[in-house]
Amino acid sequence: MATNLYDVVIVGAGPVGLMLSTCLSRWGYKIKHIDNRPEPTATGRADGIQPRSLDLLRNMGLKRKIMEYEPAKVYEVAFWDPSAKGIRRTGTWASCPKFIDARHPFTTLLHQGLIERVFIEDIEKNGTQIQRPWTITGFKNDGADPMYPVEVNLQHVAGTASETVRAKYLFSGEGARSFVREQLKIGIKYKDPIAHVWGVMDGVVRTTFPDIKMKCTIHSDAGSIMVIPRENNMVRLYIQIASSTDKDWNPRKSATAEEVQQRAKDILQPYTISWDRVEWFSVYPIGQGIAERYTLDERVFMGGDACHTHSPKAGQGMNTAFLDAVNLAWKIHHVESGFAPRSLLSTYESERKLIAENLLDFDARYAKLFSARIPSAGEVAGAAEASDLSENEFIKTFKASCEFTSGYGVAYNPNRINWSPSHPAQHPLFLTYQKGTALRPGRTLHNATVTRVVDANVVHLEQEIPLNGSYRVYVFGGEPTTTKRAVEDLATHMAAPTSFFATFSHRDQAVDRYHEKHTPHTSFLSLCTVFAAPRSHLEIDELLPPVFATYRDHVYADDVWDARVPEAKAAAHAKMGLDEEKGGVVIVRPDGYVGAVVRLAEGSGTCEALNKYFGAVTGRRMGEERASL
Amino acid sequence: MATNLYDVVIVGAGPVGLMLSTCLSRWGYKIKHIDNRPEPTATGRADGIQPRSLDLLRNMGLKRKIMEYEPAKVYEVAFWDPSAKGIRRTGTWASCPKFIDARHPFTTLLHQGLIERVFIEDIEKNGTQIQRPWTITGFKNDGADPMYPVEVNLQHVAGTASETVRAKYLFSGEGARSFVREQLKIGIKYKDPIAHVWGVMDGVVRTTFPDIKMKCTIHSDAGSIMVIPRENNMVRLYIQIASSTDKDWNPRKSATAEEVQQRAKDILQPYTISWDRVEWFSVYPIGQGIAERYTLDERVFMGGDACHTHSPKAGQGMNTAFLDAVNLAWKIHHVESGFAPRSLLSTYESERKLIAENLLDFDARYAKLFSARIPSAGEVAGAAEASDLSENEFIKTFKASCEFTSGYGVAYNPNRINWSPSHPAQHPLFLTYQKGTALRPGRTLHNATVTRVVDANVVHLEQEIPLNGSYRVYVFGGEPTTTKRAVEDLATHMAAPTSFFATFSHRDQAVDRYHEKHTPHTSFLSLCTVFAAPRSHLEIDELLPPVFATYRDHVYADDVWDARVPEAKAAAHAKMGLDEEKGGVVIVRPDGYVGAVVRLAEGSGTCEALNKYFGAVTGRRMGEERASL
Repeated sequence: MATNLYDVVIVGAGPVGLMLSTCLSRWGYKIKHIDNRPEPTATGRADGIQPRSLDLLRNMGLKRKIMEYEPAKVYEVAFWDPSAKGIRRTGTWASCPKFIDARHPFTTLLHQGLIERVFIEDIEKNGTQIQRPWTITGFKNDGADPMYPVEVNLQHVAGTASETVRAKYLFSGEGARSFVREQLKIGIKYKDPIAHVWGVMDGVVRTTFPDIKMKCTIHSDAGSIMVIPRENNMVRLYIQIASSTDKDWNPRKSATAEEVQQRAKDILQPYTISWDRVEWFSVYPIGQGIAERYTLDERVFMGGDACHTHSPKAGQGMNTAFLDAVNLAWKIHHVESGFAPRSLLSTYESERKLIAENLLDFDARYAKLFSARIPSAGEVAGAAEASDLSENEFIKTFKASCEFTSGYGVAYNPNRINWSPSHPAQHPLFLTYQKGTALRPGRTLHNATVTRVVDANVVHLEQEIPLNGSYRVYVFGGEPTTTKRAVEDLATHMAAPTSFFATFSHRDQAVDRYHEKHTPHTSFLSLCTVFAAPRSHLEIDELLPPVFATYRDHVYADDVWDARVPEAKAAAHAKMGLDEEKGGVVIVRPDGYVGAVVRLAEGSGTCEALNKYFGAVTGRRMGEERASL
Repeated sequence: MATNLYDVVIVGAGPVGLMLSTCLSRWGYKIKHIDNRPEPTATGRADGIQPRSLDLLRNMGLKRKIMEYEPAKVYEVAFWDPSAKGIRRTGTWASCPKFIDARHPFTTLLHQGLIERVFIEDIEKNGTQIQRPWTITGFKNDGADPMYPVEVNLQHVAGTASETVRAKYLFSGEGARSFVREQLKIGIKYKDPIAHVWGVMDGVVRTTFPDIKMKCTIHSDAGSIMVIPRENNMVRLYIQIASSTDKDWNPRKSATAEEVQQRAKDILQPYTISWDRVEWFSVYPIGQGIAERYTLDERVFMGGDACHTHSPKAGQGMNTAFLDAVNLAWKIHHVESGFAPRSLLSTYESERKLIAENLLDFDARYAKLFSARIPSAGEVAGAAEASDLSENEFIKTFKASCEFTSGYGVAYNPNRINWSPSHPAQHPLFLTYQKGTALRPGRTLHNATVTRVVDANVVHLEQEIPLNGSYRVYVFGGEPTTTKRAVEDLATHMAAPTSFFATFSHRDQAVDRYHEKHTPHTSFLSLCTVFAAPRSHLEIDELLPPVFATYRDHVYADDVWDARVPEAKAAAHAKMGLDEEKGGVVIVRPDGYVGAVVRLAEGSGTCEALNKYFGAVTGRRMGEERASL
């Protein structure tokens, strides 16, 4: 590869750019990554990692490094409202209530700079350097080189140096003021007509306010404030300084640190507050908007704040950025690996733009519901515990909102990769929601705790395959004696050279893959088998056809009791809504979202259904279809 | 302090020396730490961290760094015995069965060098450097300087430099061949007359043996072997090369790596094994012995392998070393802080020697029971699940052994710091085992999950106070309305200047301790309060007297359901065996072992009992006794 040719040029080293760079650098791509700041974020900016994002970071092996900084953890939100003496607490509720089956039912608060540091270390370990302070001055998808169709002009911010490179893709993670977006003349659609000016202050305080270590929403006659605890005994305060609903609305209205502190003191009456030190202070206007397009040509992409801006209240910015990046990363990887047609890239915008829209919708509905009336403590507690029965509008909105902000509610619409009854892959063995499975294509795989057979370790099934860019095929084998034949038949048909399993087999057979745990046959997919039996009953070499036995580190016993399905004999099967006797096959996309669920049956049907699904996503004919050509 | 004066000279930077150095460096002591090796351990040596040791490392904030190396985790042990075709599995069982309430029910396997690295970083951060390769050439407790009574002569191993220093204490963590022990002419008592020569090999293998990732004990007609999985896909094999019961016993018998590999191949028949690489190989003789004394003068101490050597089978070496060091560390700290009389130091030998003796006894009983007959799989499974009812000798030994090796069974005898009915502190409010409490002085505090009131975080109560050298006083407040008066009375009496709480108050009142979470009043103790009520019912400032409210980060709601006490309304109270209404006060030693348990009662009684206990351990008169002098 010539020195000025890159797979991807990434502009911006905030959360979205770093996540994309981390994934693609790990998977072997050549990245040119620039940022116009001389140093990584030193203080302030985003700080909230939602439960599902923490799962993602764990899946990447980065959670431990994040946790080493001892972030604050928000388990509950407290609501304070005006009272005769100033303010009083009117209720608290879980930020990630029990009805969400989260591994980490809390928001993790850590300043963006520390989070960035974890990514930057990983990126550098994988051979990419972030070039600073450099900026983008121009680009065009001129196709002059069909392999590297995009020309990108880069320059040192001081203008002292410049270079022109060619790339397969250009990605803008530049934030709200995106040069790339402007050049492409892509507009921002402001869903919410109300804009705000926010003041934000990080610091160490001393106070008599009892909930200073909780996330709090405080409304008082003197104004409103949001309290967010942080690492190192710090507290972040968000204060709304101006709103476009004000009579004298001025989006350039500002405030000094002292003014903001005085506002906080007034709002917190009768409690006192003072600052030992202020680490960061900023005032910025923000509107809630979404870019009309995320890409025009599927060569130049944008993500993160370049595509969507919203109020900091929901703590979603960094999380949405992470998910934008992961969504795009695996799709670029599959297209560039020959696993998918270029059209897969169009699902980046369709999937991620929907989520940004949902976020803004939720935010608006939620805010409206709350401004309309103060919910009673009982109502809030009821919402957190509520079963599916008697749900009023408040409870429904509350639940949907919690699920959404936790990240577990992210739901992509049906498309080529998210199977639905109208999917091109048609086969009687596909299972649909509540008809044979509790899983829904386009949503995350449910969490489940199982025992790994080879070493008896109790593990989290959903974490067992790292974020390595591969599809994940989970064969839930039910009762081994019941499904012995079905599993063997599946293995037999998978062995056909035209199957989804064999089509992308590693070609270089000379490479020794004895110690390769996750992708010994193909980097297209990893394979897990889970049986509804105690570990001590499972002998891998006796039970499994050789093709499955090769994935011996991914054979599990579904024998761990789970409080969520206390009656189930096989909790993982039960949580997936699969028959505990007969099992089923679950296809999970490389980013952890369910692709399709198929019945595990004797004969060729199961493999046929899988061939059809993968045929549709890869744009290839597979199985009998191909064999009969 | 003159440059050649030290609080402690530590010889040896293996587990025991490093743990001692870490604790004392953190607590501000001036340490001279030497090791005769030019570099830390690069490969091999000890590798097993038991469940309770992992709790300890977590309490020191070091667990995450250990886990970052991705150690192997052993949840189960498999037993293989001779069969017609070679060997066959006769059973498996949990290495830390469910009847032990362990937070981490597994053994963590990581090579000693990586564990050492974690400690060395911490030690250096706290200002102590390990001087290498230096050795000790002489020492005497000559009392020439009453503050620094011990003279120690140190020398570079090449003889190129030497120095003489004076210290308050000298500690030998030199391993089995301890110069200090030899100089003191302290003998080793070999409890077990049988000595062995062991071969040990770490490496990466390829094998058809299905349990290569489990801990296995394999007996075959070709000999015996122990398999232990390790980090980085490695496996450790222990092979007994010679035994003093052999006819041709020769303690100098050796074997080459190839011979050991051939033995392993023979033993594992019908399975195959080969090595991709060997990381470490060693042959060494070992007897099971205990030093007759751990100190002669309570100035020169020994710990770890210098005091006790045993078979590697139980994986106890490093764990026993850690506990030796922690036991000594806090006692030195309390004596040097004026919190305890010098006689406290005598409990180091009495407590730790007992544990070493128990270890050897268990090992012998256990081995005998197993060599006598092969337990059936049913018997082993039964033992792992057994209730207290029908226990035969095998089950009893199995349970005691599991508890002991997990570290949760460590039990110190009654003495000045472990209250018993014959303790000098006599008061009707002391509670004894099964009479008002399930806790036993001399054993660890039970694990319990609670909700921290200030931030609603769900936390592990036993981990909430870090290993900071302070006593831990847990006020279990039961039902807040029931105990309101009792808690207030306790606070009132604690406020008396002669109380256990006030006696060691910080003197420098000018220091700002607003942000001091654990020891705002005194570094002698930390204070936690736990109420049997939901978090949302607990308002710290309304509920607690100011002295308790100062420890606001240590106020907890006992409102988390626990599967071990499913019927309990307040699981933590229930697990401690305390009345869920009336609570109780638990004193925990700085190393995490229970000191005493006292009833929480209205009036002066509770504080009196605490004054008496702490009066006895500190050698001071406290409370009314002192006030009336």
